[in-house]
Amino acid sequence: MAHPVSPLAPKTYPELPDVAGVRFATAEAGIKYKNRTDVLLVSMDEGTVIAGVLTRSRCPSAAVDWCRQNLGGGKARALLVNSGNANAFTGQKGKASVALSAEIVSKALGVAPSEIFLASTGVIGEPLDAQKFAGVTAEMATRLAPGPWMDAAKAIMTTDTFAKVATASVEFDGVPVVISGIAKGSGMIAPDMATMLSFVFTDAPIAAGVLQGLLQPAIDTSFNAVTVDSDTSTSDTCLVFATGKAGIPAINSASDPRAEVFAEALADVLHELAIHVVRDGEGATKMVSVTVEGAESDKSAFRIAQSIANSPLVKTAIAGEDANWGRIVMAVGKAGEPADRDKLEISFGDIRVATQGERDPAYDEAATSAYMKNEEIEVRVGLGLGAGTATVYTCDLTHGYITINGDYRS
Amino acid sequence: MAHPVSPLAPKTYPELPDVAGVRFATAEAGIKYKNRTDVLLVSMDEGTVIAGVLTRSRCPSAAVDWCRQNLGGGKARALLVNSGNANAFTGQKGKASVALSAEIVSKALGVAPSEIFLASTGVIGEPLDAQKFAGVTAEMATRLAPGPWMDAAKAIMTTDTFAKVATASVEFDGVPVVISGIAKGSGMIAPDMATMLSFVFTDAPIAAGVLQGLLQPAIDTSFNAVTVDSDTSTSDTCLVFATGKAGIPAINSASDPRAEVFAEALADVLHELAIHVVRDGEGATKMVSVTVEGAESDKSAFRIAQSIANSPLVKTAIAGEDANWGRIVMAVGKAGEPADRDKLEISFGDIRVATQGERDPAYDEAATSAYMKNEEIEVRVGLGLGAGTATVYTCDLTHGYITINGDYRS
Repeated sequence: MAHPVSPLAPKTYPELPDVAGVRFATAEAGIKYKNRTDVLLVSMDEGTVIAGVLTRSRCPSAAVDWCRQNLGGGKARALLVNSGNANAFTGQKGKASVALSAEIVSKALGVAPSEIFLASTGVIGEPLDAQKFAGVTAEMATRLAPGPWMDAAKAIMTTDTFAKVATASVEFDGVPVVISGIAKGSGMIAPDMATMLSFVFTDAPIAAGVLQGLLQPAIDTSFNAVTVDSDTSTSDTCLVFATGKAGIPAINSASDPRAEVFAEALADVLHELAIHVVRDGEGATKMVSVTVEGAESDKSAFRIAQSIANSPLVKTAIAGEDANWGRIVMAVGKAGEPADRDKLEISFGDIRVATQGERDPAYDEAATSAYMKNEEIEVRVGLGLGAGTATVYTCDLTHGYITINGDYRS
Repeated sequence: MAHPVSPLAPKTYPELPDVAGVRFATAEAGIKYKNRTDVLLVSMDEGTVIAGVLTRSRCPSAAVDWCRQNLGGGKARALLVNSGNANAFTGQKGKASVALSAEIVSKALGVAPSEIFLASTGVIGEPLDAQKFAGVTAEMATRLAPGPWMDAAKAIMTTDTFAKVATASVEFDGVPVVISGIAKGSGMIAPDMATMLSFVFTDAPIAAGVLQGLLQPAIDTSFNAVTVDSDTSTSDTCLVFATGKAGIPAINSASDPRAEVFAEALADVLHELAIHVVRDGEGATKMVSVTVEGAESDKSAFRIAQSIANSPLVKTAIAGEDANWGRIVMAVGKAGEPADRDKLEISFGDIRVATQGERDPAYDEAATSAYMKNEEIEVRVGLGLGAGTATVYTCDLTHGYITINGDYRS
């Protein structure tokens, strides 16, 4: 079931610096895949704080339940992630499995279960045999190292066709603070959140509450602004760990001016990871941004942008390199948000195709068709009602998506 | 762009009886298609009343605006439908086009524009040249006849691969009352309403207000309970015309016991037409019903059923004959409605695959796989929370859908 690497995969990867206080190792536990790593163990020094955003699914995985419970404590010493099995919809067995996983990590690293975080991704409904971790964690604990990050990113992949990493750094009084993250996700991707796992590590000294406050808005413009197929996972998890090892005074308040600078860098890393997820969208051949302006509110703009980005007819038209703006009108109309048909303006890139509720008199079929051949497509919709604006990122819907998700027998 | 006839097309068609007071004709106006009929003109005797339900799209077509305005009068004498051009998102040109269309019909049949109804289906955003109707309506007026209904059903098709008709009759004191209808629709199908046009004719003598009151609930369990691709059209229109020619006393009140009997027959006709639309869903190879029981309310059950029926991952799994109930768990979870993971029960047909939040201990892979090979698939979800229940009908998502909607250049 290996699928060809997405044509939208990045051509180069950044070199991710070490993050002081963070060490990790990967291993082959044989959970489902053969001949590839499927477990990531991360150890963090004492004093590490955590913030996180978890799926809003009403049927969350056992690992999500576990993380939700431990997030309240705000402290973290370890993270265990596996691919191949989501440990979702596994009932009491799932609960027992996460408890045993934490116990195994606790023994290997000598840290409290309440400071251990877990994430699982893969098949839903299969019991996860946590004993498989017992066979590898003690050995992994002897190999913990600050890199290489690509190994960490690879161990958490499922149907991903490329590893996803991003990094940023900011300086405060000449002292660098590093933010580096990894993510996985390819299908079952929709707000909220994208079906994905993402783990971000920083050496910033920052209070857990402040970090949590900065995280949610950064999620809203990254993982909550991407969609591949409108299907939200049971396992979405984004965790940010801050070790506090950078040599700067602690950021203990959201009103500290450094908080805003740090938040921007964090948002950049999350946004880059989220875009990687879309670019690895199952079957994707085009990267699409949908920007809605002039809505009655940002929220309304977001809902309309989602309606367009999730429309199978819009996505198949883009796959067919067809500037079918009639389908965009349809998607605006079905969003259930305020819209005045006769004020609607639609552009592909810089080419305005519709204005004041009808085809642009200057519409140029040839120029528009040429634009649609690009690998990156911008859809812009102006509603002319207010100042609300939002952008949602998606990919096209192709035969590849059907092949990946439908061309097999169980 | 002719696509193969859906494998789910009916093997036989019912013989539709005449409806007293209704006569029609079809013609080739050359709006877009070549060598096929694309206009339907229906004439109804004086005294005919009308009820209707129109798309809730915020970007409705000019014809929808026209019908919404005329529905208030409750009277109808004529219906003009064209395929090939939706006259949607055509601005002032669209308004002028519907006014001219009505004027042309008014002249040909000698009836008032306020009692003329219009519907258009096809491409969005292209101005509709109503003068093309001028060339055919006068001649059609000379050929008006009470049948054959298949001709009417064929003239309104767009990407449909088969014509859609349904009929029912009830007797009151030995006097038969006929209800016959036609519909079109294949893609851009979702509540509310399915992207479709449907026109139903009856000789029942019934007050317009009573008919309107009976229609909405019948729509909720028919056209509003089907989805092909979650994309709601700008042009959805269901109109019911009652000529009053049947020889029974008029039904002037919803509390008349005959109203309930009539409503059931009407609901049957609408349901059959709606199922035809799903069975002709673009690329469909399987007919799927999704029934949710035990929800906190019928509305909640409906939303969860919709979430399942619209999930690309569920639909591709069914296309692949894969009993992937994990994806159903996912779709329940993302619906945003009350659900308790650990009470969830999921069945395919009579085979229970999951119970109490995990895989059924008696799960039989072979039996389930065999069931998934059927042409009709029943998905049943029990929430165990309350008495709310709903059923939504859909089809699978296949390469055929992508081919129809994405494999071309404009």
